[in-house]
Amino acid sequence: MDECLFCRIVKGEIPSFKVYEDKEFIAFLDIGPVNKGHTLIVPKTHSETFMHMDENELGKVMHAVQKVANAILKATKADGFNLMLNNKKAAGQVIDHTHFHIIPRFHNDGFKHWPQGKYADGEAGKIATEIKRFL
Amino acid sequence: MDECLFCRIVKGEIPSFKVYEDKEFIAFLDIGPVNKGHTLIVPKTHSETFMHMDENELGKVMHAVQKVANAILKATKADGFNLMLNNKKAAGQVIDHTHFHIIPRFHNDGFKHWPQGKYADGEAGKIATEIKRFL
Repeated sequence: MDECLFCRIVKGEIPSFKVYEDKEFIAFLDIGPVNKGHTLIVPKTHSETFMHMDENELGKVMHAVQKVANAILKATKADGFNLMLNNKKAAGQVIDHTHFHIIPRFHNDGFKHWPQGKYADGEAGKIATEIKRFL
Repeated sequence: MDECLFCRIVKGEIPSFKVYEDKEFIAFLDIGPVNKGHTLIVPKTHSETFMHMDENELGKVMHAVQKVANAILKATKADGFNLMLNNKKAAGQVIDHTHFHIIPRFHNDGFKHWPQGKYADGEAGKIATEIKRFL
Protein backbone atom coordinates (compact mmCIF):
# COMPACT_ATOMS: atom_id res chain seq x y z
CA MET A 1 0.00 0.00 0.00
CA ASP A 2 2.82 2.39 0.91
CA GLU A 3 4.26 1.93 -2.53
CA CYS A 4 1.03 2.87 -4.33
CA LEU A 5 1.61 6.13 -6.22
CA PHE A 6 -2.00 7.28 -5.86
CA CYS A 7 -2.12 6.46 -2.13
CA ARG A 8 0.99 8.63 -1.76
CA ILE A 9 -0.67 11.46 -3.73
CA VAL A 10 -3.78 11.11 -1.52
CA LYS A 11 -1.55 11.41 1.59
CA GLY A 12 0.19 14.44 0.09
CA GLU A 13 3.58 12.68 0.06
CA ILE A 14 3.83 13.30 -3.68
CA PRO A 15 2.67 16.62 -5.14
CA SER A 16 -0.11 16.81 -7.71
CA PHE A 17 -2.09 19.48 -9.52
CA LYS A 18 -5.21 18.92 -7.47
CA VAL A 19 -8.48 20.34 -8.80
CA TYR A 20 -11.03 18.81 -6.41
CA GLU A 21 -11.18 17.07 -3.05
CA ASP A 22 -13.94 15.86 -0.77
CA LYS A 23 -14.06 13.31 2.06
CA GLU A 24 -13.86 10.31 -0.24
CA PHE A 25 -12.29 11.39 -3.54
CA ILE A 26 -9.62 13.59 -5.00
CA ALA A 27 -9.14 14.75 -8.58
CA PHE A 28 -5.86 15.95 -10.07
CA LEU A 29 -4.40 16.55 -13.52
CA ASP A 30 -2.95 13.61 -15.43
CA ILE A 31 0.65 14.70 -16.00
CA GLY A 32 0.61 13.06 -19.46
CA PRO A 33 -2.63 14.60 -20.77
CA VAL A 34 -4.33 13.43 -23.98
CA ASN A 35 -5.67 17.00 -24.06
CA LYS A 36 -4.79 19.69 -21.55
CA GLY A 37 -7.13 19.53 -18.58
CA HIS A 38 -7.21 15.68 -18.65
CA THR A 39 -8.03 14.82 -15.03
CA LEU A 40 -8.09 11.68 -12.87
CA ILE A 41 -10.70 11.07 -10.20
CA VAL A 42 -9.44 8.78 -7.47
CA PRO A 43 -11.16 7.23 -4.44
CA LYS A 44 -8.99 7.93 -1.37
CA THR A 45 -9.44 4.37 -0.13
CA HIS A 46 -7.17 1.98 -1.97
CA SER A 47 -8.77 -0.61 -4.22
CA GLU A 48 -7.19 -2.18 -7.25
CA THR A 49 -10.17 -1.92 -9.56
CA PHE A 50 -13.58 -0.32 -9.58
CA MET A 51 -15.21 -3.76 -9.40
CA HIS A 52 -14.85 -3.52 -5.60
CA MET A 53 -16.82 -0.26 -5.21
CA ASP A 54 -20.35 -0.52 -3.81
CA GLU A 55 -23.43 1.14 -5.29
CA ASN A 56 -23.40 4.03 -2.83
CA GLU A 57 -19.75 4.81 -3.48
CA LEU A 58 -20.29 4.45 -7.25
CA GLY A 59 -23.10 7.02 -7.12
CA LYS A 60 -20.87 9.42 -5.21
CA VAL A 61 -17.85 9.04 -7.46
CA MET A 62 -19.91 9.52 -10.62
CA HIS A 63 -21.53 12.58 -9.12
CA ALA A 64 -18.02 13.94 -8.47
CA VAL A 65 -17.18 13.08 -12.10
CA GLN A 66 -20.13 15.19 -13.26
CA LYS A 67 -19.03 18.17 -11.17
CA VAL A 68 -15.39 17.98 -12.22
CA ALA A 69 -16.26 17.33 -15.90
CA ASN A 70 -18.49 20.38 -15.88
CA ALA A 71 -15.69 22.53 -14.47
CA ILE A 72 -13.21 21.13 -17.03
CA LEU A 73 -15.62 21.95 -19.88
CA LYS A 74 -15.90 25.54 -18.63
CA ALA A 75 -12.20 26.00 -17.91
CA THR A 76 -10.90 24.48 -21.16
CA LYS A 77 -13.87 25.51 -23.37
CA ALA A 78 -13.96 21.90 -24.58
CA ASP A 79 -16.75 20.67 -26.87
CA GLY A 80 -17.25 17.42 -24.96
CA PHE A 81 -15.39 14.87 -22.88
CA ASN A 82 -14.69 11.17 -22.54
CA LEU A 83 -15.04 9.38 -19.26
CA MET A 84 -12.80 6.33 -19.27
CA LEU A 85 -12.01 3.58 -16.88
CA ASN A 86 -9.27 1.10 -17.76
CA ASN A 87 -9.83 -2.15 -15.91
CA LYS A 88 -6.64 -4.26 -15.72
CA LYS A 89 -3.39 -3.99 -17.62
CA ALA A 90 -4.79 -5.34 -20.90
CA ALA A 91 -7.15 -2.35 -20.93
CA GLY A 92 -4.41 0.19 -20.28
CA GLN A 93 -4.57 0.37 -16.47
CA VAL A 94 -1.09 1.49 -15.40
CA ILE A 95 -1.62 2.31 -11.71
CA ASP A 96 -3.34 -0.42 -9.68
CA HIS A 97 -5.52 2.01 -7.73
CA THR A 98 -9.03 2.66 -9.08
CA HIS A 99 -9.22 5.85 -11.13
CA PHE A 100 -11.45 7.42 -13.75
CA HIS A 101 -10.12 9.56 -16.59
CA ILE A 102 -11.95 12.68 -17.72
CA ILE A 103 -10.55 13.79 -21.08
CA PRO A 104 -11.73 17.11 -22.53
CA ARG A 105 -12.38 16.84 -26.28
CA PHE A 106 -12.46 19.33 -29.13
CA HIS A 107 -14.10 19.03 -32.54
CA ASN A 108 -10.72 19.36 -34.24
CA ASP A 109 -8.46 17.41 -31.87
CA GLY A 110 -8.06 14.55 -34.32
CA PHE A 111 -8.42 11.65 -31.86
CA LYS A 112 -10.28 8.71 -33.35
CA HIS A 113 -11.97 5.86 -31.59
CA TRP A 114 -10.76 2.35 -32.15
CA PRO A 115 -12.12 0.83 -35.35
CA GLN A 116 -15.34 -1.12 -35.12
CA GLY A 117 -15.59 -4.68 -36.40
CA LYS A 118 -18.63 -6.73 -37.36
CA TYR A 119 -20.21 -10.00 -36.42
CA ALA A 120 -20.58 -12.89 -38.84
CA ASP A 121 -24.11 -14.26 -39.30
CA GLY A 122 -25.34 -15.84 -36.08
CA GLU A 123 -22.26 -14.85 -34.11
CA ALA A 124 -23.75 -11.92 -32.15
CA GLY A 125 -26.63 -14.10 -30.94
CA LYS A 126 -24.21 -16.73 -29.68
CA ILE A 127 -22.08 -14.19 -27.81
CA ALA A 128 -25.15 -12.53 -26.28
CA THR A 129 -26.36 -15.95 -25.07
CA GLU A 130 -22.93 -16.69 -23.61
CA ILE A 131 -22.87 -13.35 -21.71
CA LYS A 132 -26.42 -13.94 -20.41
CA ARG A 133 -25.31 -17.29 -18.97
CA PHE A 134 -23.23 -15.34 -16.45
CA LEU A 135 -25.95 -12.87 -15.51
CA MET B 1 -38.25 11.09 -28.75
CA ASP B 2 -39.95 8.66 -31.13
CA GLU B 3 -37.07 9.02 -33.51
CA CYS B 4 -34.43 8.10 -30.89
CA LEU B 5 -32.86 4.78 -31.90
CA PHE B 6 -32.19 3.69 -28.32
CA CYS B 7 -35.70 4.61 -27.16
CA ARG B 8 -36.98 2.40 -29.97
CA ILE B 9 -34.69 -0.45 -28.88
CA VAL B 10 -35.91 0.01 -25.27
CA LYS B 11 -39.52 -0.26 -26.51
CA GLY B 12 -38.65 -3.36 -28.55
CA GLU B 13 -39.54 -1.65 -31.84
CA ILE B 14 -36.05 -2.37 -33.12
CA PRO B 15 -34.39 -5.71 -32.36
CA SER B 16 -31.14 -5.90 -30.41
CA PHE B 17 -28.89 -8.58 -28.98
CA LYS B 18 -29.94 -7.92 -25.41
CA VAL B 19 -27.77 -9.33 -22.63
CA TYR B 20 -29.29 -7.67 -19.54
CA GLU B 21 -32.44 -5.86 -18.47
CA ASP B 22 -33.83 -4.54 -15.20
CA LYS B 23 -36.44 -1.94 -14.33
CA GLU B 24 -34.25 1.01 -15.27
CA PHE B 25 -31.55 -0.17 -17.68
CA ILE B 26 -30.96 -2.46 -20.61
CA ALA B 27 -27.69 -3.71 -22.06
CA PHE B 28 -27.22 -4.99 -25.60
CA LEU B 29 -24.35 -5.72 -27.97
CA ASP B 30 -22.87 -2.85 -29.98
CA ILE B 31 -23.35 -4.04 -33.56
CA GLY B 32 -20.01 -2.49 -34.56
CA PRO B 33 -17.86 -3.98 -31.78
CA VAL B 34 -14.27 -2.87 -31.09
CA ASN B 35 -13.89 -6.40 -29.74
CA LYS B 36 -16.60 -9.04 -29.81
CA GLY B 37 -18.78 -8.77 -26.72
CA HIS B 38 -18.62 -4.92 -26.75
CA THR B 39 -21.83 -3.96 -24.96
CA LEU B 40 -23.82 -0.77 -24.37
CA ILE B 41 -25.63 -0.05 -21.10
CA VAL B 42 -28.55 2.29 -21.60
CA PRO B 43 -30.95 3.96 -19.13
CA LYS B 44 -34.52 3.28 -20.31
CA THR B 45 -35.51 6.88 -19.62
CA HIS B 46 -34.35 9.18 -22.38
CA SER B 47 -31.68 11.75 -21.54
CA GLU B 48 -29.19 13.20 -23.97
CA THR B 49 -26.12 12.94 -21.76
CA PHE B 50 -25.18 11.39 -18.46
CA MET B 51 -24.81 14.87 -16.93
CA HIS B 52 -28.57 14.71 -16.19
CA MET B 53 -28.45 11.52 -14.11
CA ASP B 54 -28.76 11.87 -10.33
CA GLU B 55 -26.51 10.23 -7.75
CA ASN B 56 -28.91 7.41 -7.00
CA GLU B 57 -29.36 6.54 -10.68
CA LEU B 58 -25.59 6.81 -11.25
CA GLY B 59 -24.96 4.30 -8.45
CA LYS B 60 -27.47 1.91 -9.98
CA VAL B 61 -26.17 2.17 -13.54
CA MET B 62 -22.58 1.66 -12.44
CA HIS B 63 -23.60 -1.33 -10.38
CA ALA B 64 -25.24 -2.74 -13.53
CA VAL B 65 -21.99 -1.98 -15.41
CA GLN B 66 -20.07 -4.07 -12.84
CA LYS B 67 -22.45 -7.02 -13.25
CA VAL B 68 -22.48 -6.92 -17.03
CA ALA B 69 -18.70 -6.35 -17.27
CA ASN B 70 -18.14 -9.34 -15.03
CA ALA B 71 -20.32 -11.52 -17.27
CA ILE B 72 -18.55 -10.23 -20.40
CA LEU B 73 -15.15 -11.08 -18.89
CA LYS B 74 -16.32 -14.61 -18.17
CA ALA B 75 -18.08 -15.14 -21.51
CA THR B 76 -15.31 -13.73 -23.71
CA LYS B 77 -12.37 -14.74 -21.47
CA ALA B 78 -11.11 -11.16 -21.83
CA ASP B 79 -8.11 -9.95 -19.82
CA GLY B 80 -9.73 -6.63 -18.89
CA PHE B 81 -12.20 -4.07 -20.15
CA ASN B 82 -12.67 -0.37 -20.80
CA LEU B 83 -15.68 1.50 -19.58
CA MET B 84 -16.25 4.51 -21.81
CA LEU B 85 -18.71 7.31 -21.96
CA ASN B 86 -18.60 9.72 -24.89
CA ASN B 87 -20.17 13.01 -23.90
CA LYS B 88 -21.20 15.05 -26.96
CA LYS B 89 -20.33 14.69 -30.62
CA ALA B 90 -16.74 15.99 -30.24
CA ALA B 91 -16.11 13.05 -27.89
CA GLY B 92 -17.55 10.46 -30.27
CA GLN B 93 -21.16 10.38 -29.04
CA VAL B 94 -23.20 9.23 -32.04
CA ILE B 95 -26.59 8.51 -30.46
CA ASP B 96 -28.00 11.31 -28.30
CA HIS B 97 -29.30 8.98 -25.60
CA THR B 98 -27.02 8.37 -22.61
CA HIS B 99 -25.07 5.12 -22.93
CA PHE B 100 -21.95 3.54 -21.49
CA HIS B 101 -19.64 1.30 -23.53
CA ILE B 102 -18.09 -1.81 -22.02
CA ILE B 103 -15.29 -3.03 -24.29
CA PRO B 104 -13.62 -6.36 -23.49
CA ARG B 105 -9.84 -6.19 -23.94
CA PHE B 106 -7.14 -8.76 -24.62
CA HIS B 107 -3.40 -8.52 -24.03
CA ASN B 108 -2.73 -8.97 -27.73
CA ASP B 109 -5.60 -6.97 -29.27
CA GLY B 110 -3.31 -4.18 -30.42
CA PHE B 111 -5.52 -1.22 -29.45
CA LYS B 112 -3.52 1.69 -28.16
CA HIS B 113 -4.68 4.63 -26.11
CA TRP B 114 -4.41 8.12 -27.51
CA PRO B 115 -0.92 9.56 -27.16
CA GLN B 116 -0.20 11.60 -24.06
CA GLY B 117 1.17 15.13 -24.29
CA LYS B 118 2.97 17.21 -21.69
CA TYR B 119 2.61 20.54 -20.00
CA ALA B 120 5.08 23.37 -20.41
CA ASP B 121 6.55 24.79 -17.19
CA GLY B 122 3.84 26.47 -15.13
CA GLU B 123 1.05 25.48 -17.50
CA ALA B 124 -0.44 22.63 -15.43
CA GLY B 125 -0.74 24.88 -12.38
CA LYS B 126 -2.59 27.50 -14.41
CA ILE B 127 -5.03 24.97 -15.86
CA ALA B 128 -5.66 23.40 -12.43
CA THR B 129 -6.40 26.87 -11.01
CA GLU B 130 -8.75 27.58 -13.90
CA ILE B 131 -10.66 24.30 -13.33
CA LYS B 132 -10.89 24.98 -9.57
CA ARG B 133 -12.53 28.34 -10.30
CA PHE B 134 -15.58 26.42 -11.55
CA LEU B 135 -15.75 24.01 -8.60
